[in-house]
Amino acid sequence: MIFAPLIQERLDTLAAISAEPGAITRLYLTPEQARAEILVSGWMREAGMSVRRDAVGNLIGRVEGPEPDAPALVIGSHLDTVRNAGRFDGPLGVLTGIGCVAALVREGVRLPVALEVVGFADEEGVRFAATLTGSRAFAGHLDPAALRTTDAAGTTLAAAMRAYGLDPGAVKSAARDPEKILGYLELHIEQGPMLEREGLAVGLVTAISGASRLELTLTGEAGHAGTVAMTERRDALAGAAECVLAIEARCRGEEHLVGTVGRIQALPGAVNTIPGQARFSLDLRAPDDGQRLAALADIEAACRKIAVRRRLGLGVALLHEADAVPCDPALTALVGAAIAEEGHPVLALPSGAGHDGMSVAAIAPIAMLFVRCRGGISHNPAEYASLSDIEAGAAVMLRAIRGFCAERTRSSA
Amino acid sequence: MIFAPLIQERLDTLAAISAEPGAITRLYLTPEQARAEILVSGWMREAGMSVRRDAVGNLIGRVEGPEPDAPALVIGSHLDTVRNAGRFDGPLGVLTGIGCVAALVREGVRLPVALEVVGFADEEGVRFAATLTGSRAFAGHLDPAALRTTDAAGTTLAAAMRAYGLDPGAVKSAARDPEKILGYLELHIEQGPMLEREGLAVGLVTAISGASRLELTLTGEAGHAGTVAMTERRDALAGAAECVLAIEARCRGEEHLVGTVGRIQALPGAVNTIPGQARFSLDLRAPDDGQRLAALADIEAACRKIAVRRRLGLGVALLHEADAVPCDPALTALVGAAIAEEGHPVLALPSGAGHDGMSVAAIAPIAMLFVRCRGGISHNPAEYASLSDIEAGAAVMLRAIRGFCAERTRSSA
Repeated sequence: MIFAPLIQERLDTLAAISAEPGAITRLYLTPEQARAEILVSGWMREAGMSVRRDAVGNLIGRVEGPEPDAPALVIGSHLDTVRNAGRFDGPLGVLTGIGCVAALVREGVRLPVALEVVGFADEEGVRFAATLTGSRAFAGHLDPAALRTTDAAGTTLAAAMRAYGLDPGAVKSAARDPEKILGYLELHIEQGPMLEREGLAVGLVTAISGASRLELTLTGEAGHAGTVAMTERRDALAGAAECVLAIEARCRGEEHLVGTVGRIQALPGAVNTIPGQARFSLDLRAPDDGQRLAALADIEAACRKIAVRRRLGLGVALLHEADAVPCDPALTALVGAAIAEEGHPVLALPSGAGHDGMSVAAIAPIAMLFVRCRGGISHNPAEYASLSDIEAGAAVMLRAIRGFCAERTRSSA
Repeated sequence: MIFAPLIQERLDTLAAISAEPGAITRLYLTPEQARAEILVSGWMREAGMSVRRDAVGNLIGRVEGPEPDAPALVIGSHLDTVRNAGRFDGPLGVLTGIGCVAALVREGVRLPVALEVVGFADEEGVRFAATLTGSRAFAGHLDPAALRTTDAAGTTLAAAMRAYGLDPGAVKSAARDPEKILGYLELHIEQGPMLEREGLAVGLVTAISGASRLELTLTGEAGHAGTVAMTERRDALAGAAECVLAIEARCRGEEHLVGTVGRIQALPGAVNTIPGQARFSLDLRAPDDGQRLAALADIEAACRKIAVRRRLGLGVALLHEADAVPCDPALTALVGAAIAEEGHPVLALPSGAGHDGMSVAAIAPIAMLFVRCRGGISHNPAEYASLSDIEAGAAVMLRAIRGFCAERTRSSA
């Protein structure tokens, strides 16, 4: 194995940087980010890259191309984590990128493009309400309102940036010129069970699923659990239960469509009171926006039908909506070819989880490579990818970078 | 109207005694109980009764019978309330009893029995974990452990009794000799919608329903809402939703059987996480214990089937179980006759809510009369019974007392 032992060693070293002893918690603009920066920038330099930190704290390593300021192929992922995280989600992509660049630099090949490895500073969005802060700023579309969001202690993102030594007034300078980014490659653990089920080390991402997030509220009539006959009830929770099953049934019918009710509440919430109100969340995702919006319309109609039949009020609040981000067909075909050349079957699958690539897609073609993780478990200390899968992922990534460079050389010849 | 205006005036006067301004909150062993005692004992004396407070704070008014210490017919209900209560739940029964005794005393009829009106001190069980403290002590079966239960401030029931001027060591002296209690009549608002639906002022209670209270826990596997295909999921909340509907379907099939899921929780409870666990409560009631236990067995079996099909674990914890308390057929027939003689159709219905009569049934035959309340609403400031329904209830109660006395005279003649 060429890459995996060092990547694993570095994953373990990074994992030791945490705000909570015995766990992995590395949030945005904290002392843990600073410690991680020192480590990772050292590894970047060791790989032959120059290193800088941009205006929002993204760590950028770069190997120059044929001329100064040449357009770059970017390999990236994030260095921040959720609370009590695993060690692979994010860092695996950054460290694989560093490993691949180091290999190319060692070989002394003449690169037709610049290569960058980016460790995005905030993907998870755990500390502040904003997510993907790093990659959004990188792509030049960070909402300025994000600077006013606060953490649990009431500190604004802007104040936290100042305390970290960053100038919140300079955020725009993190935005990259689209002309100078030729493509973006991201390797990430799958965070799902599909590769494991198919017995594959790696998978080719076709799109990052779009998502709709809603809160639904059913309103009936509260009453005494002992005195109101079943036929007289307008039980909001019984209605919600029907809705939960309708959501499940609708989503079960289509591949890659997923719908989740993760939260539910019955009000007033007393053991001996018929719920007068029930609220629940819906998280709906699909790699195709038409597929998602059709499912959403069907689900709303089904819930409305249930509400009418049960004489309940129905409120539907859309909290968040993000369109699907398709991966670039040409760049994805290149990664697919690299997978096949490495001897793996090519399983194309959507990413149900969000990734930095979603933001970068606004300014450059993107492609993503998934690495199998055990049991599909992520955001959890039990997160695990095997050495041989890490190696397979890095080998595919290196081959994809080589493929990109070869094509670039061909087209400019 | 003979009774209702005075009863309503007194309900309003009592309602002004509250621990919270603008609301009605009269808890056990509080200054509010003491103020209510002063008022109600005054009304009892005015009605011609001697008044005493027993060892747990029940207020007992008595008109002697043909000889000293003659056995008594007891009319009772409670004077305590829930927090932010209505004005009818409890006091209506006590004040109606006082009104009826006053009428009989005014007439100067020679009573073949003693008459007592009891204002039980704690039925709701809001302050301490124990409920029905007043009537349980009256019936001689208050669990001594109840004295050690604490309120939110950590005060034990025993300490609160001492502070109120009662001797917790003397609780047993509140227990009445079953030989001396000939019967117990309780008038109460229905706290349900049946009488209103049937257009009736009063109803005849057949039994106080038994209840089973459970917590059910389904355990599946948590996962990322975006990455786990629907067919791969072991979603605990989807399983719980099926159980909620199974409970509803089972209970809908039988008259007087009611099952309520008042509380539900999905864990970990994040919008973007498939629930790995779901917990919900079940409150199951029926006037017939066999009916309730058969339904409980069916519900457990249905939930188990759902869990097995969905590959979920199922835990069932029984938190509380109380058998049904049938009303005494003879005494109930007497109240039924009084309803009919007052010109009302006789609707027999179970009480799904608990009442002081449940405790007293251990030492005496009981019967209960329901008065219609608007919308079935109770435990709520909107609780309401009309003057004419209050009058109808009091007229039936007076006729029932007369009927009881007449029968007693006949049987002893």
